[in-house]
Amino acid sequence: MSIIVQKYGGTSVATIDKIKSVAKLLIERKEAKYKVVAVVSAMGNTTDKLIGMANEISKNPSKRELDMLISTGEQITSSLLAMALKEMGHDSIALTGFQAGIVTGNQHTKAPILDIHIDRIRRSLDQGKIVIVAGFQGVDEYGNITTLGRGGSDTTAVALAAKLECPCEIYTDVKGIYSTDPAIYPDAKKLDYISYEEMMEMASLGAKVIETRAVEMGKKYSVPIYIALNDGKTSGTYIKELDEFMETKVITGLTTNDDDLMVTINNVLYDPKYIYDIFHRLSSMDINIDMISQTAPVGGYVNISFTAPKDSKDSINKLVGELRITAREMKIDIQEDITKISVVGLGMKTQSGVASRIFKIFADNDIEFKQVTTSEIRISYTINTKDKEKAILKIAEEFNL
Amino acid sequence: MSIIVQKYGGTSVATIDKIKSVAKLLIERKEAKYKVVAVVSAMGNTTDKLIGMANEISKNPSKRELDMLISTGEQITSSLLAMALKEMGHDSIALTGFQAGIVTGNQHTKAPILDIHIDRIRRSLDQGKIVIVAGFQGVDEYGNITTLGRGGSDTTAVALAAKLECPCEIYTDVKGIYSTDPAIYPDAKKLDYISYEEMMEMASLGAKVIETRAVEMGKKYSVPIYIALNDGKTSGTYIKELDEFMETKVITGLTTNDDDLMVTINNVLYDPKYIYDIFHRLSSMDINIDMISQTAPVGGYVNISFTAPKDSKDSINKLVGELRITAREMKIDIQEDITKISVVGLGMKTQSGVASRIFKIFADNDIEFKQVTTSEIRISYTINTKDKEKAILKIAEEFNL
Repeated sequence: MSIIVQKYGGTSVATIDKIKSVAKLLIERKEAKYKVVAVVSAMGNTTDKLIGMANEISKNPSKRELDMLISTGEQITSSLLAMALKEMGHDSIALTGFQAGIVTGNQHTKAPILDIHIDRIRRSLDQGKIVIVAGFQGVDEYGNITTLGRGGSDTTAVALAAKLECPCEIYTDVKGIYSTDPAIYPDAKKLDYISYEEMMEMASLGAKVIETRAVEMGKKYSVPIYIALNDGKTSGTYIKELDEFMETKVITGLTTNDDDLMVTINNVLYDPKYIYDIFHRLSSMDINIDMISQTAPVGGYVNISFTAPKDSKDSINKLVGELRITAREMKIDIQEDITKISVVGLGMKTQSGVASRIFKIFADNDIEFKQVTTSEIRISYTINTKDKEKAILKIAEEFNL
Repeated sequence: MSIIVQKYGGTSVATIDKIKSVAKLLIERKEAKYKVVAVVSAMGNTTDKLIGMANEISKNPSKRELDMLISTGEQITSSLLAMALKEMGHDSIALTGFQAGIVTGNQHTKAPILDIHIDRIRRSLDQGKIVIVAGFQGVDEYGNITTLGRGGSDTTAVALAAKLECPCEIYTDVKGIYSTDPAIYPDAKKLDYISYEEMMEMASLGAKVIETRAVEMGKKYSVPIYIALNDGKTSGTYIKELDEFMETKVITGLTTNDDDLMVTINNVLYDPKYIYDIFHRLSSMDINIDMISQTAPVGGYVNISFTAPKDSKDSINKLVGELRITAREMKIDIQEDITKISVVGLGMKTQSGVASRIFKIFADNDIEFKQVTTSEIRISYTINTKDKEKAILKIAEEFNL
């Protein structure tokens, strides 16, 4: 008998009726002769409500206790789902992260999974039980409850599938992975397949269907991941290792991100130590820098641009203010209305010319770009936010997304 | 440094503001040089809400999963309280039943505490932390979450105090233990002291301030229990072993209970085996019989009366209907408007005449009583509910309650 791990997100289990519907889907799968493990998130906005209570007590609540608090959300869903299955005549067992043997580091609110003692789940499956696991949580070596951070339930599901050596299905409120955001480009196509690498690039660039971390784990342990709507009908997207002989598209996906601003510092002393010092200070302030570019030195000075999260504006201004005490020639310019637009595709590894085709699109359509960075399977540009829709439309047409 | 275990019930922690107030009380105690352990219940009506969700899924939800579900209530309160303490600058740690080392039997929804591995609590106290324990819960030997049943948080608190060899304070929404219900007899006195035995009798007779089970454990391990209002001002009631040389009142308390009906079966064949069979059948039907009385046999027949919970009426009628198939002379009479009135007092052990003083009160005031049973420190009567207030008033006056 094959094993399958399924994950149901917060909207799929938001009400008692929805929990009953999930129970029926699990029973269908069991009756198709599968051993079923289901990982569940907290019901609807439960986690937000719990965090709200914590914030009434403290702006910066103790992380250990925050984990203990918010982990109750998934515990509630899992026990209700197991109850529903038993009520429908199918034996089931609900397990907290601890009971499921999920051992993590002690980095509360963002703990990595270190190991899973899988025996109890295996034993329960062998007894014919549908196993329900509370997602998003584990315990550290001292038995403290931890949570896994953003997208934690996806990570729980993929990690269990890795340990059980079986595929993982993630049911959510979108139909699958799209080549670009259908809200902006309605003709965007749902992908049947995407490689782990492409999905990781897209997820890290802001495609919110699944967290990078879960995909990374899927890649590491070769877990095929299937993402689909929770309606048992519409077909979704497989994330897996793509056969290298398969014909790959040059570009699989296009993502955009409006959360950053672009900082340009003019007249920076051209001294690698001095420039290192600037970036070191930014990193000490926990400011996540991206897309660094630098002009060639003129008269011993360079201009440096980089993108950073919008909420770091004040910190960056403060830092440059301090630097100008000893370097009054330095000038700072911050642009807030910028968008990072990225194209991702395994095909770029073998096909060149993608960057120049996009440069041509920008030139033909009067789209000004400010920065460009590339990786093996990704090219990102910084453009003005006002040009975003036009850029998406033209790139999507050009590459048939 | 002395250790103290305190317990705060659901109304004391019903809101975030109330949780903050409890935190302040704990800090006061810590600053008075105590090592403090606090046991907390679920906030307000949280447990009822969770049970409501379970009942939307099943009329008879899986008990294992029900325990997993409702235990989240206390987990939430404990993590919020520890957060509040840390926010106020006092180190604290919240522990679930499992983390607190509370090992129970596997009788879900009414598990007995088997042992407490107290090391983690002791270590945390030694590190100067205020320890918050989620009440009402534990784990069985396989790590399944269990709950302790009615009054479970009181039992958690007293059991921890037993293990830590320290006193236990239970903060609640009443001022303490009263000689009788102040709602019926406004002159009722709050007791400064009551013995474990008296409290157990009163609790089992329906005085709802603390469960019999917690008092029983207090007696077994000689844990002094203090019950008081959660306002840090009004003095409450101590439950403890009373010094035998202390002057004890003849009667400490008076309780009443309207939850039973009185069943009389006339013309029962006077055969001990036959009578045993009747009571055996009642007990197999989980009907909790009390106050059995039997008349002397006349012509080979006796009349038997007993009290039983009001909701067992149909089952009892059905049973007698079955018995009448082979014993048509048998007749059943069920009276619903009856009240069980009991007086409790250690003094009865040494002073006689209490029963006759009460018989005189009944005779002087036209109060008809139907049954009487006695134990070493208790006398109970069945009377008509219409006479309840008069009986309470007259007995309270006679014995200066």
